[in-house]
Amino acid sequence: MTRRPAVVLLSGGLDSATVLAIAQEQGFECHGLSFRYGQRHLCELEAATRVAAAANIGQHVVVDIDLRMFGGSALTADIEVPKHQTADDLGDGIPITYVPARNTIFLSFALAWAEVLRSSDVFIGVNALDYSGYPDCRPEYITAYEHMANLATKAGVEGRQRLQIHTPLMEMTKAQIITRGVELGVDYAMTSSCYDPAEDGAACGHCDSCLLRRKGFTEASIADPTTYTTDVFAP
Amino acid sequence: MTRRPAVVLLSGGLDSATVLAIAQEQGFECHGLSFRYGQRHLCELEAATRVAAAANIGQHVVVDIDLRMFGGSALTADIEVPKHQTADDLGDGIPITYVPARNTIFLSFALAWAEVLRSSDVFIGVNALDYSGYPDCRPEYITAYEHMANLATKAGVEGRQRLQIHTPLMEMTKAQIITRGVELGVDYAMTSSCYDPAEDGAACGHCDSCLLRRKGFTEASIADPTTYTTDVFAP
Repeated sequence: MTRRPAVVLLSGGLDSATVLAIAQEQGFECHGLSFRYGQRHLCELEAATRVAAAANIGQHVVVDIDLRMFGGSALTADIEVPKHQTADDLGDGIPITYVPARNTIFLSFALAWAEVLRSSDVFIGVNALDYSGYPDCRPEYITAYEHMANLATKAGVEGRQRLQIHTPLMEMTKAQIITRGVELGVDYAMTSSCYDPAEDGAACGHCDSCLLRRKGFTEASIADPTTYTTDVFAP
Repeated sequence: MTRRPAVVLLSGGLDSATVLAIAQEQGFECHGLSFRYGQRHLCELEAATRVAAAANIGQHVVVDIDLRMFGGSALTADIEVPKHQTADDLGDGIPITYVPARNTIFLSFALAWAEVLRSSDVFIGVNALDYSGYPDCRPEYITAYEHMANLATKAGVEGRQRLQIHTPLMEMTKAQIITRGVELGVDYAMTSSCYDPAEDGAACGHCDSCLLRRKGFTEASIADPTTYTTDVFAP
């Protein structure tokens, strides 16, 4: 039987590696899509390439887009990434690491590629629980995007393909995501979540993303394979 | 009084040059956004730069994105651009020059820039009458995009800015667009519409876009300032 093609957004982080494993388990022929968007944490992309290779997927395409020209985010501009001691210290509201319209741009490229691949399935690792306050990670946003997408394309209009955006992690805690990934054989040592890693890729351990990741491993009672720049495991 | 900022998608064609003039007449401080997306008609971008300079706009940004990696369109891939004798010969349905998700991608970058500029206004020259069968030029698509965009951004969620996508040409014929542009002082000799121009930028006169443009000038009873590679004005 021919497997149905799907486009999987692959950041190199813990979440998207898990999404890829879930999509493969559901029987999809996965094609990975990553972006070089001026992020300060380029080791994310190396992680995405490692994850794609380990999962033996169809194709892995890295699209070059430069969001720095628009400025406005600590992830791409010259603004310091905030650090905290524990996940309980994370602020409310939308953080400064928010990149304007990032998921909208990423999904738009996924939509274009899906149409060319004659695929009606896009996977993205957004999450409504540990979502850090990003508006473009919420279920109502994803639903609105699907609706728009099905009016946008030749495939949607001709009724050949109704695009579906799969968000298997939407309602999962970080601990549940890690538990599911480990069941599916994901090697999280390959992934990179840190917003402000060292030259060698070691994670800072104290940015929002590191704190959520650490908390997830702790709550899942699974040993954290991440290399940190400081001894975050010290009591 | 400070003028409100707006992002204007600027292709270098007749339509977007008219949209820019309309946005300026409405009092917006316009910022032009163009894309180098692997199109075979790069002289479009030179036209966009000429139009932006002549209109003396705030900024003109050209974003590099390579849609060729996804293939699938006569405008970007190695497929011959169809030619016809007159506009009456244009086929029904969605043409081969359709680029997957193009407007969705373009609007997503406009959305990102608008948020950084603290702008809630994006202008795009889509048209439902002379739209050549592109699904992402229809009013229902634009409405769905606006809805999605207002769920996507920090500005939308915080209620600071409700994004509005302005489509002033939506219900106008090509002749009406040209008439309006001439009233506003647009110099259409600066613009480039051809899908398959010669090296020197001269228009082929027979692709879908040239035929619609020629018909527009004829119906508006305005002299066509376009340079064509053949004598399209011969009886």
